[in-house]
Amino acid sequence: MVGVVGGGQLARMMQQAAIGLGVELRVLAQRSDDPAAQVTPGTVIGDHHDFEALKAFAAQVDVLTFDHEHVPTDFLHELEAAGVAVRPGPDALVYAQDKGLMRQRLSALGLPCPEWRLVASDDDLADFGTTVGFPYVLKATRGGYDGRGVWVVGDLAEAKAVWAEAVERGVTLLAEVKVPFVRELSAQVARSPHGQAAAYPVVESLQIDGICREVYVPAPGLSEAAALDAQRIALTVAKELGVTGMLAVEMFETADGSILINELAMRPHNSGHWSMDGAVTGQFEQHLRAVLDLPLGLVKPVAPVVVMANVLGLDLPEVYPAYKHVMAHDPGVKVHMYGKAVKPGRKIGHVNVLGLPGRPFEDTVERARHAAAYLRGEIDE
Amino acid sequence: MVGVVGGGQLARMMQQAAIGLGVELRVLAQRSDDPAAQVTPGTVIGDHHDFEALKAFAAQVDVLTFDHEHVPTDFLHELEAAGVAVRPGPDALVYAQDKGLMRQRLSALGLPCPEWRLVASDDDLADFGTTVGFPYVLKATRGGYDGRGVWVVGDLAEAKAVWAEAVERGVTLLAEVKVPFVRELSAQVARSPHGQAAAYPVVESLQIDGICREVYVPAPGLSEAAALDAQRIALTVAKELGVTGMLAVEMFETADGSILINELAMRPHNSGHWSMDGAVTGQFEQHLRAVLDLPLGLVKPVAPVVVMANVLGLDLPEVYPAYKHVMAHDPGVKVHMYGKAVKPGRKIGHVNVLGLPGRPFEDTVERARHAAAYLRGEIDE
Repeated sequence: MVGVVGGGQLARMMQQAAIGLGVELRVLAQRSDDPAAQVTPGTVIGDHHDFEALKAFAAQVDVLTFDHEHVPTDFLHELEAAGVAVRPGPDALVYAQDKGLMRQRLSALGLPCPEWRLVASDDDLADFGTTVGFPYVLKATRGGYDGRGVWVVGDLAEAKAVWAEAVERGVTLLAEVKVPFVRELSAQVARSPHGQAAAYPVVESLQIDGICREVYVPAPGLSEAAALDAQRIALTVAKELGVTGMLAVEMFETADGSILINELAMRPHNSGHWSMDGAVTGQFEQHLRAVLDLPLGLVKPVAPVVVMANVLGLDLPEVYPAYKHVMAHDPGVKVHMYGKAVKPGRKIGHVNVLGLPGRPFEDTVERARHAAAYLRGEIDE
Repeated sequence: MVGVVGGGQLARMMQQAAIGLGVELRVLAQRSDDPAAQVTPGTVIGDHHDFEALKAFAAQVDVLTFDHEHVPTDFLHELEAAGVAVRPGPDALVYAQDKGLMRQRLSALGLPCPEWRLVASDDDLADFGTTVGFPYVLKATRGGYDGRGVWVVGDLAEAKAVWAEAVERGVTLLAEVKVPFVRELSAQVARSPHGQAAAYPVVESLQIDGICREVYVPAPGLSEAAALDAQRIALTVAKELGVTGMLAVEMFETADGSILINELAMRPHNSGHWSMDGAVTGQFEQHLRAVLDLPLGLVKPVAPVVVMANVLGLDLPEVYPAYKHVMAHDPGVKVHMYGKAVKPGRKIGHVNVLGLPGRPFEDTVERARHAAAYLRGEIDE
């Protein structure tokens, strides 16, 4: 039995995959109406910040995995010491939890990162500004405060203000150069405890206001050499950090075609939702196979291009009435909804569209974009 | 909310599709460890032969549909009269429940059936033998007895013995010519209450000892004219009988290429399991869309050929240990298990394999056959 900490949409989609594999899944959710709790029998309601709740949940299952990265690393070390199979384990997961550790480790491995510095003083802020210029980016290494974890600072005064607040809140900051990227890429790989790995095609993700809106598969116009390079980076991260399960390496592509690592996620990821309909093995099935140490599945796409578009909550209180239009307008659109109450800006679902052979790429983008926009109530025709 | 009567594997796979659509599903199961009960929260344990249980279940849901055809037709008429949306409705479903009524109706519609006669006397048995020759087939129009519903009778004495027993048990018999078919085909269509219909590619199904073992998509070597004819027959049945949801028309193909209708199933069907991985819209999603009166999805296959092989229980008490071999041997195999205890001959799962472009059809058959045989413990290499 696989136990998933967190009851969000990722756990919900793992349940779909688990049903197919005949694998029993249990969820530790915060609320009984969380997306995964709605569709998974035997869901345990509990808080992942409560070690006793976590321990009791782990005792029920054979393997523990995650819907998110918010479980305290110490708890996971304790569980592992107590014999629980934690996948990914805390020694890997910590690099997805702590951006400072991530930068240190990736740089030590010689992997391409934007210029960075851990902030220990006002002098660091000034030095970093002198080195890379303003504006630059400050990031909380873990979490953040007031719901924010990233600040773009235009000058030293702004940087100092953010730092002062962070010190007061006990938050560690990482300074990073603001990368003049032309687009964002994501390289996903799966890795199992015995070391088998599989690399999905590299995709482009379109982010607006820091939220992923669309994903294009494969990344349009990316050279084979660059794609192989991105896959090699992701495979190296997975191996060197000892990741088990799905890993997404989010990357910046700059004007000269070079690639810099932005973030890591050690779980199924929004940039891989396309694979549910677009690849022989979807990322949720692959994650389960990996954490169960089963052989990995084929990652081949089943269409020449695939486009994913997120459905963000807007003004429609109910999405369901829009189904008739979306499905009638384009019977090839694959709708995935998460059972979430609609709130502005919240990811409440996504659509996948498989490109038709011989049709231009833009055609597939347009189909996905229209369906998602209609479902979120942005357009009504 | 969709309510499914019956907790078997079909309801289980409907739950997978319902999760994706964001549609809530409820199951009325006989046992708490039924395949669908294991994966669907809020499952109601009850008997579909108990009208009060059925009525209470129906009161919870917006639409009632089925995992099987065993609900008494009278009950469904009563529910419909009480305002329950029963899909397919009893006026359609009765033709999948009663083979005598099915033959009368299809013949009246001019659709091709094997020669048949309802048996009312010993004379009918003799006359039918004179007309079509022995052996011929006797079928219980509904159910049967001692777990049997079909008898091949070699002479009049055998026919009379079956008939005598049937009379004693209150079972009505239908006599049918034993069709010298070369293979079995299945034509699946979906139809919604407002009359939209979609026809899946016609498939060949390989039956051994009356149990479906493999399905080949599309039916190899079937002429386009014959395929269109089979689809036309299925669409006519769906329309004229007022079917809502998935309909499978199982057919015999004879040596001269003509087609005769064998059986009807008004629900997702074993011959359509390939579509879960092999078509843009799988039959379980399509069934839900149809019974909810949502526009139907695209039925286009995503590979040039698709092969489904059933996993029948044999000697392995546990299937899970075989996963490692099957998945390592062929990462492209899609495994679907039903969470059933393994019993000899029982359908406990199936595998789907998408054919690779340019590879011979036999290659895909071999891949599916090997995986299924290994999962059922028939081979161990």
